[in-house]
Amino acid sequence: MSKRVSFIGLGVMGFPMAGHLQKAGYQVTVYNRTEQKARDWTSQYGGQMAASPAEAASGAELVFVCVGNDDDLRSVVLGQSGVLAGMQAGAVLVDHTTASARVARELEQIAAMQEIGFLDAPVSGGQAGAENGQLTIMVGGKPDTFAKAEPVMKAYARFCRLLGECGTGQLAKMMNQICIAGVVQGLAEALNFGQRAGLDCAAVVEVISKGAAQSWQMENRHQTMLKGEYEFGFAVDWMRKDLAIALEQAAQIGASLPMTAMVDQFYQEVQNLGGQRWDTSSLLARMKP
Amino acid sequence: MSKRVSFIGLGVMGFPMAGHLQKAGYQVTVYNRTEQKARDWTSQYGGQMAASPAEAASGAELVFVCVGNDDDLRSVVLGQSGVLAGMQAGAVLVDHTTASARVARELEQIAAMQEIGFLDAPVSGGQAGAENGQLTIMVGGKPDTFAKAEPVMKAYARFCRLLGECGTGQLAKMMNQICIAGVVQGLAEALNFGQRAGLDCAAVVEVISKGAAQSWQMENRHQTMLKGEYEFGFAVDWMRKDLAIALEQAAQIGASLPMTAMVDQFYQEVQNLGGQRWDTSSLLARMKP
Repeated sequence: MSKRVSFIGLGVMGFPMAGHLQKAGYQVTVYNRTEQKARDWTSQYGGQMAASPAEAASGAELVFVCVGNDDDLRSVVLGQSGVLAGMQAGAVLVDHTTASARVARELEQIAAMQEIGFLDAPVSGGQAGAENGQLTIMVGGKPDTFAKAEPVMKAYARFCRLLGECGTGQLAKMMNQICIAGVVQGLAEALNFGQRAGLDCAAVVEVISKGAAQSWQMENRHQTMLKGEYEFGFAVDWMRKDLAIALEQAAQIGASLPMTAMVDQFYQEVQNLGGQRWDTSSLLARMKP
Repeated sequence: MSKRVSFIGLGVMGFPMAGHLQKAGYQVTVYNRTEQKARDWTSQYGGQMAASPAEAASGAELVFVCVGNDDDLRSVVLGQSGVLAGMQAGAVLVDHTTASARVARELEQIAAMQEIGFLDAPVSGGQAGAENGQLTIMVGGKPDTFAKAEPVMKAYARFCRLLGECGTGQLAKMMNQICIAGVVQGLAEALNFGQRAGLDCAAVVEVISKGAAQSWQMENRHQTMLKGEYEFGFAVDWMRKDLAIALEQAAQIGASLPMTAMVDQFYQEVQNLGGQRWDTSSLLARMKP
């Protein structure tokens, strides 16, 4: 009989991720705070829905969580109706939320008291990656726990790697977001500069993307940036949540992040322009006259 | 009979570039301020050397210049012994220096009075690109002037594109350097963060380079950055010269470059650490305890 798994949190990421598990042949039980989403999910994919995280997790070998932030995560994992109340010894809890390393370590310890394994496993690849089953997963935790979860995560991952002990997945995701902040701000300053200088920026990008200035953001975002199109992609609100986590972590370990802190403030300006849901590349929007 | 061309400025870039012209079958006459370099060049490649830029340029269909900055450029182009004093009507002057758009427009006007075409044609690809004949060339100027020079520049270019009127090549190069400033600072902040957090940064980069944080700098510089190796590549002194040009241009057109200006200041700190000749990726060095 196929594995019983459960998925908690059917947002833009979790909804298709849970769908890939069901399509891969697992018996999936889902839970979502807004019940209608869970109903939509079962009509689309089959599977089961549950009335609480604990009920969804009951009897599952693997429980996946993908929610908004540290507080959401604690609320679906801990307490009377949380997943740990339903899980059995030997099962594994995988958290796909981008959250702090601290909450990951906290949950690993609590889960261990019930002999439940825990992995922090934030993803990158965005909504498109979730829908196509092509996510990249950065994992922290114990190797034997990872070994149990990895084959199942392959249902929606293009690349999945254990990077070290618990918390390491979250720290790696922070590195990812810090890099993106620098790349996008540099690209936005360059495009604004080029537009004000009257250049054919698309032609310039075609040339400079062949060399040391090249980046994924340059190749995949310059056209929409030049058109001022931002109604897609990874939202500014989520980026600010992630950067806040990185900045707090940096303060704990004495890492100076001057560019990241500045770009975070620029995203505040984008939010003030009404850009809460705009793509991360909207840093260019705040430079317009 | 093959074309007569001349090359002024046999630095780390110009020396191999002029060599590629000679190897491609052109009759090359070189000039260099330090005469020994010109002597070394003729012993290695053949060709001729001249006692002044004017003498080198005399009788050439195309004259290439690759020197340090605006002032060096004016000194080899203008005046009694400058290239324009030796050039004939109908010839073309190509400037490979990374310089200001202003000096490019100034020289185009002066050259036009002698019916000499002018192109600003800064390159990217570094010393390795010059040696392998794989440079990228960003060109500004008139299409008919470009048509005369392009086939010859192919001796050392992988990619060569006319981007618009005179000055456009320099403006494109500025966009290139602005992008690099953001990418490298983001990467440096991320690697410093990861090292202080105790991560296996090479493993993290292997994962995050598959997604939206990817960049040429990440792929080609993270290993040397993690080892603290900076004795190669594009020097901090040159990067600061280029960023100064971009910042001055930005002030003229009202483009705000907050990240670029900050990173330029960080390069000052790298210079103060003795890193004048270190690679651009040495932004990480100033973050060490």
